[in-house]
Amino acid sequence: MAGGSGTRFWPLSKETHPKQFIDILGTGRTLLQQTFERFRKIFPLENIFIVTGLAYKQITLDQLPEIPENQVLLEPHRRNTAPCVAYATHKIKSICPDANFIVSPADHLIINELSFLEVISKGLVFAAGHTALLTIGIKPTSPQTGYGYIQINTEDEISSAFNGFKKVKTFTEKPDLEMAKIFLESGEFFWNSGIFIWSAKAISEALEVNLPEVNTLFENKNAVYNTVDEAAFIENAYSDCRNISIDYGIMEKAENVYVVCADFGWSDLGTWSSLYEHSTKDANGNVITSSNTLDYNLKNCIVKVPEDKLVVLNGLENYIVVETDNVLLVCPISEEQEIKQIVNQVKMLKGGEYI
Amino acid sequence: MAGGSGTRFWPLSKETHPKQFIDILGTGRTLLQQTFERFRKIFPLENIFIVTGLAYKQITLDQLPEIPENQVLLEPHRRNTAPCVAYATHKIKSICPDANFIVSPADHLIINELSFLEVISKGLVFAAGHTALLTIGIKPTSPQTGYGYIQINTEDEISSAFNGFKKVKTFTEKPDLEMAKIFLESGEFFWNSGIFIWSAKAISEALEVNLPEVNTLFENKNAVYNTVDEAAFIENAYSDCRNISIDYGIMEKAENVYVVCADFGWSDLGTWSSLYEHSTKDANGNVITSSNTLDYNLKNCIVKVPEDKLVVLNGLENYIVVETDNVLLVCPISEEQEIKQIVNQVKMLKGGEYI
Repeated sequence: MAGGSGTRFWPLSKETHPKQFIDILGTGRTLLQQTFERFRKIFPLENIFIVTGLAYKQITLDQLPEIPENQVLLEPHRRNTAPCVAYATHKIKSICPDANFIVSPADHLIINELSFLEVISKGLVFAAGHTALLTIGIKPTSPQTGYGYIQINTEDEISSAFNGFKKVKTFTEKPDLEMAKIFLESGEFFWNSGIFIWSAKAISEALEVNLPEVNTLFENKNAVYNTVDEAAFIENAYSDCRNISIDYGIMEKAENVYVVCADFGWSDLGTWSSLYEHSTKDANGNVITSSNTLDYNLKNCIVKVPEDKLVVLNGLENYIVVETDNVLLVCPISEEQEIKQIVNQVKMLKGGEYI
Repeated sequence: MAGGSGTRFWPLSKETHPKQFIDILGTGRTLLQQTFERFRKIFPLENIFIVTGLAYKQITLDQLPEIPENQVLLEPHRRNTAPCVAYATHKIKSICPDANFIVSPADHLIINELSFLEVISKGLVFAAGHTALLTIGIKPTSPQTGYGYIQINTEDEISSAFNGFKKVKTFTEKPDLEMAKIFLESGEFFWNSGIFIWSAKAISEALEVNLPEVNTLFENKNAVYNTVDEAAFIENAYSDCRNISIDYGIMEKAENVYVVCADFGWSDLGTWSSLYEHSTKDANGNVITSSNTLDYNLKNCIVKVPEDKLVVLNGLENYIVVETDNVLLVCPISEEQEIKQIVNQVKMLKGGEYI
């Protein structure tokens, strides 16, 4: 899933190049490329599909030159994750009705890749043997208020073969800090990573039961998938489809939902603070990726500026400094929640060219 | 005099376009243009001469399209102000041996223009009637440590016709704060504006007596001035000439030095603080010239950024934010003294392209 359009890291991320298409960690690879390469280590190229917005077709093909165009599923309208999953499910089923597959965001950070791939592999074995909807729960390391949580049935043990796999009791919305602390202490709550593993059969059934009107739109009538008619069919389906998330539409309703409890170092990189946390810092705690920066009395700052600009920063602590071709932002990290409002103001006052 | 190469307002001012060529106050006119237009109000165009560096010929002609090329005196090397005055003196003498003229920096701020022009006019009358070197002293309004001071002979009154004209007792270097306070209280000390008024005869004699070896180099041998041979002659003169200021070389030594005490609102705009002081501020005390800036919790900042960049600033107090085509500087105003060292570091580490 590489269709997000977030402007949370604005002006680094913009509508024309959202987060997944950015080398936000300064590693030399964008998050989409990192995600692709991670899965590519254990899956053949022909088994990897990217779902993204029609507007992001070219940037996707540019960033992943290996991927054949037929494996890039283009969403003509934004409809959240449930239609995305429905589209992918029916397309994959038309190629391989017995497929087991993973649904994963393309803009997350995975630190321990080996551990991640082990969880994925075990999850696929589980999905092959159970008509179940499996989600990956992340062992929380702090009382995050920015994540949804999954509560498990601690007593419930699937089988000795699937150690760490649990039946899901509830999905919860983002908690307040007090609640998050209770979650953390209880040992029953895991961060909802938004990564799912299931058989085409299991997710098809879940779509039929829980989102029948969405499912109908994407069913492979007249065998359109992987033909020249797919784009027109999908255009119609998305036009008629409502906006709904897979969590709300299926995961929170279905009975056969399981979680594999994992601990491979994960972040959705959803905030500047989390980006800061997971970035390499210099001796003064600064995250500076450009080599063309001179800093004096700079502490705990995130500096994202183009390499061809000489940037001289003096006397800033806990600031974000971002420069793009047409925007400069200087903002305390503590005020990052305000950036969303700033983006709205920019959209209103200045027009779309900066967003 | 428009030959300065200061990088005090770096990166706004650079070696390729120093302060005099910048619209540093955001008025729509550069300091050179303002200075030219100020004098143009009482002097015919043919009486105005610009002395500047050879490298600044084109920018000068671009900014002052009215001025004929023969009135732009080009210095092939930097030699401080004494050679500049010697060159101008001999060139002007070759055109009009009886001239009285004014020597003025091109990068200062004059607030009360009418009062300034009155002082200038009165000064020219004085210069025409006295073989004297007249300088303009500014009534100090605060104990500035960034200016040189002129001490007057308070008892000495030239004549009732020249009220406010005094004999100079001493020129002093930049004082420390304690001394500056004493200067201010005494009433005997005036800021040295670096603006001079004299007859060609008076300054010629002063050059002959105090800087004979400089004077000799610029004497109008073979009537070269205003001919095709002038440039080659000046190239030789500057090559052989030493680096020396008019203050040190003449004003501090000559006997016939006078000052006219003035109070027309003057600043040499030598620091970011003085620029801040003399700029128009918004309700939060910010000096922001770009209309494409959004500010949140911004106080007492100077923001100089290109109009085509959207600049979003949040939570800064007493900062300088300057952006140019290839440099971004964010620095507390209180650290402005460090900018000189930063410029030196930039020169060393990054090369000349940024300076």
